Amino acid sequence: MLASRFFISTLKEAPSDAEVTSQKLMLRAGLIRKVAAGIYTWMPMGLRSLRKVETIVREEMNRAGAIEVLMPAVQPAELWQESQRWEAYGPELLRLKDRHDRDFVVGPTHEEVITDVARRELKSYRQLPRHFYQVQTKFRDEIRPRFGVMRGREFTMKDGYSFHADYADLEREYRNMYDTYTRIFTRLGLDFRAVAADTGSIGGTGSHEFHVIAETGEDDIAYCPDSDFAANVELAEAFGPGVARPSPSRSLEKVHTPGVKTIADLADYLKIPVETTVKAIVVKGDETPAGEPVLLMVRGDHELNAIKAQKIEGILSPLTFASPEDILVAFGANPGSLGPIGFKGRVIMDRTVAAMADFVIGANDDDWHYVGANIGRDFEEPEVADLRNVVAGDPSPDGKGSLEICRGIEVGHIFQLRTKYSEAMCCRFLDENGREQHMEMGCYGIGVTRILGAAIEQNNDARGIIWPQAIAPFELVLCPVGLGKSDAVREHATRLYESLLEAGIDVILDDRNERPGVMFADWELIGVPHRVVIGDRGLKDGLIEYQGRRDVEALQIPLAQAVDFIRGKLTTAS
Amino acid sequence: MLASRFFISTLKEAPSDAEVTSQKLMLRAGLIRKVAAGIYTWMPMGLRSLRKVETIVREEMNRAGAIEVLMPAVQPAELWQESQRWEAYGPELLRLKDRHDRDFVVGPTHEEVITDVARRELKSYRQLPRHFYQVQTKFRDEIRPRFGVMRGREFTMKDGYSFHADYADLEREYRNMYDTYTRIFTRLGLDFRAVAADTGSIGGTGSHEFHVIAETGEDDIAYCPDSDFAANVELAEAFGPGVARPSPSRSLEKVHTPGVKTIADLADYLKIPVETTVKAIVVKGDETPAGEPVLLMVRGDHELNAIKAQKIEGILSPLTFASPEDILVAFGANPGSLGPIGFKGRVIMDRTVAAMADFVIGANDDDWHYVGANIGRDFEEPEVADLRNVVAGDPSPDGKGSLEICRGIEVGHIFQLRTKYSEAMCCRFLDENGREQHMEMGCYGIGVTRILGAAIEQNNDARGIIWPQAIAPFELVLCPVGLGKSDAVREHATRLYESLLEAGIDVILDDRNERPGVMFADWELIGVPHRVVIGDRGLKDGLIEYQGRRDVEALQIPLAQAVDFIRGKLTTAS
Repeated sequence: MLASRFFISTLKEAPSDAEVTSQKLMLRAGLIRKVAAGIYTWMPMGLRSLRKVETIVREEMNRAGAIEVLMPAVQPAELWQESQRWEAYGPELLRLKDRHDRDFVVGPTHEEVITDVARRELKSYRQLPRHFYQVQTKFRDEIRPRFGVMRGREFTMKDGYSFHADYADLEREYRNMYDTYTRIFTRLGLDFRAVAADTGSIGGTGSHEFHVIAETGEDDIAYCPDSDFAANVELAEAFGPGVARPSPSRSLEKVHTPGVKTIADLADYLKIPVETTVKAIVVKGDETPAGEPVLLMVRGDHELNAIKAQKIEGILSPLTFASPEDILVAFGANPGSLGPIGFKGRVIMDRTVAAMADFVIGANDDDWHYVGANIGRDFEEPEVADLRNVVAGDPSPDGKGSLEICRGIEVGHIFQLRTKYSEAMCCRFLDENGREQHMEMGCYGIGVTRILGAAIEQNNDARGIIWPQAIAPFELVLCPVGLGKSDAVREHATRLYESLLEAGIDVILDDRNERPGVMFADWELIGVPHRVVIGDRGLKDGLIEYQGRRDVEALQIPLAQAVDFIRGKLTTAS
Repeated sequence: MLASRFFISTLKEAPSDAEVTSQKLMLRAGLIRKVAAGIYTWMPMGLRSLRKVETIVREEMNRAGAIEVLMPAVQPAELWQESQRWEAYGPELLRLKDRHDRDFVVGPTHEEVITDVARRELKSYRQLPRHFYQVQTKFRDEIRPRFGVMRGREFTMKDGYSFHADYADLEREYRNMYDTYTRIFTRLGLDFRAVAADTGSIGGTGSHEFHVIAETGEDDIAYCPDSDFAANVELAEAFGPGVARPSPSRSLEKVHTPGVKTIADLADYLKIPVETTVKAIVVKGDETPAGEPVLLMVRGDHELNAIKAQKIEGILSPLTFASPEDILVAFGANPGSLGPIGFKGRVIMDRTVAAMADFVIGANDDDWHYVGANIGRDFEEPEVADLRNVVAGDPSPDGKGSLEICRGIEVGHIFQLRTKYSEAMCCRFLDENGREQHMEMGCYGIGVTRILGAAIEQNNDARGIIWPQAIAPFELVLCPVGLGKSDAVREHATRLYESLLEAGIDVILDDRNERPGVMFADWELIGVPHRVVIGDRGLKDGLIEYQGRRDVEALQIPLAQAVDFIRGKLTTAS
């Protein structure tokens, strides 16, 4: 590509409403332009990267045996009423009426449309399994679209849906997609993790999220650097320290703690490590009489995990805190000084607490705590459960090391939908015995446009974007210095450009005749991973200059070996 | 591709609501499935053809120097209000509100969005010209969507928009696009015509439509088989016979024509050729006093062309017929017996009438006509104008032969928008003298999904679709007979399939193990242009069978030469 035949539009400053790095850089580098909140035009430079992502996704989906289709953006409400998502889906579902006053949606996802296709097309077990996917424009009416293409309203997704005769076959395809997504994100050149995830609102059981690791990510991920284990922090199982509870070494002592309401205050006031304290949290039970207070005990520096707690039998779900009135009746004290000693109701302690001795806890007397509290000695041995979020240093649930915590940006998600949609929409087939069965379904999404934002969040510096080579708008930029003045530069630049094209390298020749400073700043902002500079100074010694986007220094390369050298760089880089 | 890894779904009968051939065949061949009125899912087989069309369109647009972008489907109403199309566009514009009650549209076209991009990005004549295009999903809320993808509501378009410093440069790009479209439709393998067209509602002046020629087309096109001339029948200039008016040979005679109201009745009753009669049509003038009747004279077998008539100075536009009351006052007679003799008002005759003598015309006396009427002798020489639609046999306006009439399906349209949008939306640049100017704009559309319907309307037979090779879902199908039973068939079919893939041929191996009759019927319906059959019967003599989709008979080909033979067929076919 010649720059003069292309469109390059960089900005010195990002618009003031841009919030995150990727959004600022995409706007500054001219990859996207805003049309309305969360709605963008993909400019030529951005579209090239977008298409490269799409191509990799398609190649790997096809290789995995999925078959491409294209479903409409505008979908009839009837299908959403059948699946009962017309009511269940919130205001993110963009609803509209056509000229005949019929209800439609601009689809945020396509379970209904594809299930309607499947129930009409797939009648026999002989036609199963099938996996249909598409790369398509979706709309989700976010209440607060932000972060550019990271949480836009109109976006491109790859969404695939698989149909199976039985659960074992769904599991096989789920694994196939797990492997396929792993290949896709590897080919995209991204540092990512497959994360065991909650299923969210899309329904069904069994799911993994694929996260691009980036400090600016919205999700906390617990992972084991020594194994494949990764999970949303809220879902990872938290274990105790794996050592037996020490014997009590102190006697129970009631101390006055005037005005102390929080764990931080308490540790501060008593000048003790927060790890020696225990938090008491009172929630409602769901057994007769409903709402009866249940006491949860979590180490002072740990966080209660509501999802884990509400899954415990006898605990009201969603997790609901007991009212101050009920607490006062049950404990004889107010929050801030609560504890198990003297409490007659149900007590559940976290696994970590179960291994503690001589800790500090509320005394059920306002402004008083116990120090030297011990389980079994000072109060009855309570139930034990996993009640908290994991923290860095916790043992990995797979037993292969310790957990670390990082932040991630969700770019892919695979689900076992099971029969949620096939039952709601009567999507049935005849099995080998001639019996009608509901199909088992899986669904598999990749946020194609979001990937670009995530890739930039992961790969940037003060000068701009640093694209992974596979999805850079161009692999290489050729910058001639003094193009307008030097015949030698023009001639050699043109010849090298043509040789690079012939070698199959995705190169852009910057023939805009800009000053070197302007050229270099533009291409560093745009983030093209490889740069070659060709100028009279080097040419007189038969040299050109190569610099990788992450390199600190440029290399002088003989012009005669330029193509081979660059080919080598492109092969080894990622 | 292996058929077992693909998705083939043919139907014996088209759904009862399918109206036209292409729609029926696309549904029967499993290319599309209906989701709602005018809204379809592209099934795997149809999507392959769609992608091939997109690829050819992109390649030629890129080659022509246009730059690809991707604009959003959902567009803010503000832009449409600025261009005043928010009001002007009818109910085909799908309007909607987001969750914050802001107005949006699902875009049927993108002049506003791209003009908004251009006015923000292009500031100087140095940045001009620019041509941006996209291949994108559009929505037009047709009152009566029909004919499958030919007049759907959601569809794919290639729409391009060019921006220029002056009109001469717009004209250059317009010609560039005329040539590019010609290349595109040629590469698609379609019989088409570029047709001078009215600009319709999109605005501006200067436009050509590109029509795929098909008997089932909705538009009548006049074209010259001996030249490039082609125009919408309503726009082609109609000339007289090019010979002088003969001298009168009969005297004027008033004949009784009881109950004769139409030209057909008249010719029938008088036993004369309809070409010797003249129709009198009375329309309203727009001069003072407004609405004054004007008499238009057109040969009996010709059709009045309203667009031409209303362009004549002094004629009310849009063309409005005079009321029966006004006619009775002005002519003393009712429609069916009207004529120029004795009429005191303005009379305009068509060029063909101007060359007639001894014709029959109404006598301005109910149930009476004149025969042997002659211009100049029996009434004053009237004004002459082009008032009618052209008919087959008319001289071509370019003087290169006679016109023929055919029917076409519009699949492309190029417009000179001029400054309609740049003025409405303040899209200006600084010219070489530092003066602000409005950009000249062109716009260029191709109905990508519609092309598939048009291609099928043009190319089909009783057995199904006959794809032009360039856009067939597969170029070649390999049908093994007795795959399940014969090791030789399996072995040779697999080997040939692999050799064909290696040769870069887009082949599908039908490994479904269906009976030959089922296979052949499926692939003839789907319309794959080349077929090879491999079976034990031929293999024992080292032969396979080749048949082109349009061929009457199959050929026996030595297996050893199969790849070369097929490559030859693919190279020469279109």
